[in-house]
Amino acid sequence: MNKTEPKTLSGFMELMPSEQLVFDNIKNTIIETYRSYGFYPLDTPVIEYSEVLLAKAGGETEKQIYRFNKGDNDLSLRFDLTVPLAKYVAKRYNELTFPFKRYQTGKVFRGERPQKGRFREFYQCDIDIIGDEELSLKYDSEIIAIINDIFTKLNLGKFVVRINNRKVLSGFFESLGLTDKITDILRIVDKLDKIGESEVKEILKDYNISENDVNKIIEFITMKGSTKEKLNNLRNYNCNELFMRGVSELESVIEDLENRNINPENYMIDLTIARGLDYYTGTVYETILTEYPGIGSVCSGGRYENLAEYYTDKKLPGVGVSIGLTRLFYQLVEAGIVTVENTTPSEVIILPMSENYKYIYEVNNILRNKGIKTDICYIEKGFKQKMKYANKMGNKYVIIIGDDEVNNNTVALKNMQSGEQEIIELDNLNKVDFN
Amino acid sequence: MNKTEPKTLSGFMELMPSEQLVFDNIKNTIIETYRSYGFYPLDTPVIEYSEVLLAKAGGETEKQIYRFNKGDNDLSLRFDLTVPLAKYVAKRYNELTFPFKRYQTGKVFRGERPQKGRFREFYQCDIDIIGDEELSLKYDSEIIAIINDIFTKLNLGKFVVRINNRKVLSGFFESLGLTDKITDILRIVDKLDKIGESEVKEILKDYNISENDVNKIIEFITMKGSTKEKLNNLRNYNCNELFMRGVSELESVIEDLENRNINPENYMIDLTIARGLDYYTGTVYETILTEYPGIGSVCSGGRYENLAEYYTDKKLPGVGVSIGLTRLFYQLVEAGIVTVENTTPSEVIILPMSENYKYIYEVNNILRNKGIKTDICYIEKGFKQKMKYANKMGNKYVIIIGDDEVNNNTVALKNMQSGEQEIIELDNLNKVDFN
Repeated sequence: MNKTEPKTLSGFMELMPSEQLVFDNIKNTIIETYRSYGFYPLDTPVIEYSEVLLAKAGGETEKQIYRFNKGDNDLSLRFDLTVPLAKYVAKRYNELTFPFKRYQTGKVFRGERPQKGRFREFYQCDIDIIGDEELSLKYDSEIIAIINDIFTKLNLGKFVVRINNRKVLSGFFESLGLTDKITDILRIVDKLDKIGESEVKEILKDYNISENDVNKIIEFITMKGSTKEKLNNLRNYNCNELFMRGVSELESVIEDLENRNINPENYMIDLTIARGLDYYTGTVYETILTEYPGIGSVCSGGRYENLAEYYTDKKLPGVGVSIGLTRLFYQLVEAGIVTVENTTPSEVIILPMSENYKYIYEVNNILRNKGIKTDICYIEKGFKQKMKYANKMGNKYVIIIGDDEVNNNTVALKNMQSGEQEIIELDNLNKVDFN
Repeated sequence: MNKTEPKTLSGFMELMPSEQLVFDNIKNTIIETYRSYGFYPLDTPVIEYSEVLLAKAGGETEKQIYRFNKGDNDLSLRFDLTVPLAKYVAKRYNELTFPFKRYQTGKVFRGERPQKGRFREFYQCDIDIIGDEELSLKYDSEIIAIINDIFTKLNLGKFVVRINNRKVLSGFFESLGLTDKITDILRIVDKLDKIGESEVKEILKDYNISENDVNKIIEFITMKGSTKEKLNNLRNYNCNELFMRGVSELESVIEDLENRNINPENYMIDLTIARGLDYYTGTVYETILTEYPGIGSVCSGGRYENLAEYYTDKKLPGVGVSIGLTRLFYQLVEAGIVTVENTTPSEVIILPMSENYKYIYEVNNILRNKGIKTDICYIEKGFKQKMKYANKMGNKYVIIIGDDEVNNNTVALKNMQSGEQEIIELDNLNKVDFN
């Protein structure tokens, strides 16, 4: 028979089992944290009408989208989880309770030119709160509390959520008489971390902004000092009403984080954070792993005025963040922050060296009832081969059950790391700590 | 601005938040059980090369597949999780440890004619064990143990795993001299539950099988008796070598289930189970919710000789089952087995009636540290509006914190079901049982 080559498309992540285990553990930590704050899960189709997904889009999105016809329908694969959320909320407006708190994790698709660390199919882990007409600023800080929880649990070293407010930036640029250039400036300034100060200055000048104004902009956004000092400093700028509203919002968010007793090392005001999208209108965030700044933001988002304006007249403000998990995972492995060795899907593996399976399953049930993930090696080969399998699986604990163990109501417990083996009475198996 | 209608494609499940919560809880129970047996997670791309996905396929599959071009590539969306598994194992053969135990849950796509309860995008929850050249029969019964665990935990009432063996059926049909018609007979016999005995008889006769043989087939497959009686009965048939190998396999599986101490009401030998696919070669299973037989099998699968013959010469036998979760969920809701009312993503909701958020977050942290999913209502309105929100969310427990509570170091705890409200000292909040 002719064989087909079993190949996978480039730009599509397909992990080895032990890598997938680590990936899923990270995903589960994110989801469990989202859930613990009382958010609903949401699951929208991968395929939507092209006209629905592209109601707003243009430019890059249209070029990258996977679009095709099936029957009479013009269909596309979702390229993010925000547009489907907007569709969902507009469609279900009358049935939903607001504020509507939802998370969604799922694959999205963008036919980008494949390059190292870029994927055409990737997971987004999104969380958003949508209000009807209005939405308390407390939700802006709740999002930071959630990020703080997630990255504390993920244990990837120090991290910091960099917080800014679009109104502060826009108000400041307005005060320089640059109102018509705000969108461009925000986009350029957002690249400061990547391309550096002098490059940003050059590009700003290309937009016909005077050297004087360029210097003021750079001086402003690179403001130094503690959170308290920055807030005082901002109050003193007092550019205009929009600016001061932004400062008040920023103050509220910071005050709320203090009330929440969040480690102050885990967040800061950073006026360089602009976020490229014109979508954001208030609080904006990025999250940096302090020891690996080269990875860039691992979790970004912010406050927007109007989630679903392409579908409905209702004003639906929201706030949220997104974790691009596929890219993040790739980077964590590349940087050696996450290792996939010695990961195993079970905590204990039983090697049966007796035919008394009634006894073997009794042992298995004791462990399972204790909540221990237990594997049994059923390969019909000798001890050496079974031990080889256990070694490959990488379990720390191996339980060997031969006829002696059956007759004596015991098991042989081997710690594969220390090499030590001990005989445990069945009655005491319950008390063993498999850590 | 012109608005786009926020519509969802027909045949694509998109649930309300409270429904999604129940759906996810079922999915999580399935995944946690899979994991507890030491299976690796696997995640393969939604999009693959068409030639890879269609290496075997033909007929219905080709017609239903979502297929399109992007750049120079002929691409398709996966229509099941078995073909991607075959591709994966063939591709990674040298890196994997066998037996390879993996589960995969994910969406698959089939452009079927939409009809009630049929979906074009649906979740499959698959679990398989793949051997290299050989695979112990113990894995056939491990799969049943897993099904037993899942449906016990899901608490959908009584269920029964119906077990058969293809070798028994094929051996029997061979003994009647019907070797060349086995595939047809298996396919027809598999419909017995749906179309009834007399219809099956008629169709078999259309295939030029004598009335005498048809009667023998029906008599055989509808064999009555206990598991023990059926096995004895089968031994006495002693048709031929293939048949007796099937009987031995069936006996081994049953014996192993007894050793595992699985409730004997949860499984039975049922010789009518054939499974339509020509793929299966040994043990086959279906699972029926006893009180809702109309739903049909909720979990099916079996043993196959060769997972990946379209990609590799390696002989890779396997055994597995699949739960079609989207369809199952739809049916559970339709039949009223699962209700989505009174589901809420948090266990407790806090209504702040004081501006002392430091205190409010202290309460929140006590609950969160106890592992209680806690929501806080931040809507900036009066008590009535906040209570209305809590009511809509459907939480059983509401915690109200006003200035009195802050001053007295207490919270007001209201049980929304009984209407009772009591004052709890902060020091005692830890001890409250929120069930």
